Amino acid sequence: MSAGKIYGLGLGPGDPDLMSVRADRLLRNARHVAFFRKPGRSGQARKIVAGMIPQDAVEFPMEYPVTTEIPLTDPRYNALLAAFYEDCANHLKALAEQGEDIVVLCEGDPFFYGSFMHLYSRLRDKARVEVVPAITGMSGAWTATGDPITWGDDVLTVLMGTLPEETLTERMAQTDALVVMKIGRNIDKVKRALNAAGLYDRAWIVEFAQMPNQTVTKLSEACTKVTPYFSIIIVHGQGRRP
Amino acid sequence: MSAGKIYGLGLGPGDPDLMSVRADRLLRNARHVAFFRKPGRSGQARKIVAGMIPQDAVEFPMEYPVTTEIPLTDPRYNALLAAFYEDCANHLKALAEQGEDIVVLCEGDPFFYGSFMHLYSRLRDKARVEVVPAITGMSGAWTATGDPITWGDDVLTVLMGTLPEETLTERMAQTDALVVMKIGRNIDKVKRALNAAGLYDRAWIVEFAQMPNQTVTKLSEACTKVTPYFSIIIVHGQGRRP
Repeated sequence: MSAGKIYGLGLGPGDPDLMSVRADRLLRNARHVAFFRKPGRSGQARKIVAGMIPQDAVEFPMEYPVTTEIPLTDPRYNALLAAFYEDCANHLKALAEQGEDIVVLCEGDPFFYGSFMHLYSRLRDKARVEVVPAITGMSGAWTATGDPITWGDDVLTVLMGTLPEETLTERMAQTDALVVMKIGRNIDKVKRALNAAGLYDRAWIVEFAQMPNQTVTKLSEACTKVTPYFSIIIVHGQGRRP
Repeated sequence: MSAGKIYGLGLGPGDPDLMSVRADRLLRNARHVAFFRKPGRSGQARKIVAGMIPQDAVEFPMEYPVTTEIPLTDPRYNALLAAFYEDCANHLKALAEQGEDIVVLCEGDPFFYGSFMHLYSRLRDKARVEVVPAITGMSGAWTATGDPITWGDDVLTVLMGTLPEETLTERMAQTDALVVMKIGRNIDKVKRALNAAGLYDRAWIVEFAQMPNQTVTKLSEACTKVTPYFSIIIVHGQGRRP
């Protein structure tokens, strides 16, 4: 019996119609489906594939032991997550050794700030792993705004809202086009940085890009409620265009 | 008779299996297919969809009047291209007004440094236009390297090889993860900038990402031949990972 394969399956921004042909085929034939979720939640990735995976597929929800309860800087955060990823990787590896293929659901593109990367780094030398790239959440977001993100020689910078305010401001001030992800509780800091960098009035916020509940709003006109972790801020480049 | 729709159809990095389900469906039902190409060439986008579009589809090749014969800074370059895009846009608009749907083939993601944007800006207020996002060439490239591009809070910077060497060096020195596109005849300048920024030894070059002739090489081990315009340089981030 030959070993099975572990697929890091990029789902794209959230619309099943925007999944790749390969991802669609792998999902519809899946026997084992693994996905991350917060305890007590159904999980965004699992929701996206509702109705696509076979009814008799075996599901393996991987529940984060911690999300925002412990600060990133606390050493316990790293230790807890490392043990968690190790456990998950071992489970997938054991399944693959039994000859089973497993698809691991990944929102967006698996190699772009994805949780799957933490399994991949633990599995790549011990199992057959294939990564299926996908449309990034940020592509979904800039498409939703109806304006191209980059023209000509524009520099694009992608920043995480979790960075220090000074770093955010400095990098924002130097770029032509900008994407900010991981906004959530960092929204006020990100807004101050955008203001300091002179980009606030050009910024858009996209929530649930390419999903039925998608919203696209000028940041300056967005209400003050806390935005979901997966909303994305977009500032379009204004480069050369004949 | 209602007006037809113009689709800016993202094809992704080049493997038909990595197109979106929506792009695949639109292509297989297409009646009119427009695409850019250099005079005398078959066109990369058209090659990607070979065997997918119906045999009786009407093709509309849009041949660039100029590519690299005139420097970007010459005002004639802009004037020639502006007239060309205007002509193409008018042709597509006329077809749509006759009730025809048209798919415009776009390599990578249409809103990410794409030529389609120049048609889009001329058509968006005069016709029904829908943009179908896609996997970017850079996602195809970093997936090909077998290593994630960004971890944790990594800053990602995307640069065009056409930028001045000083700008390249400065931006490279400040980023965690890096993508450089539009390499072609700029390869020596890009290499010098990578060296000056201390990134040369971590750089990979991917040619024809996700295509049968794909190559993935450490830049320091790549031979000196001029690389195709669509090769991509990747420097992976090294951020936080539990």
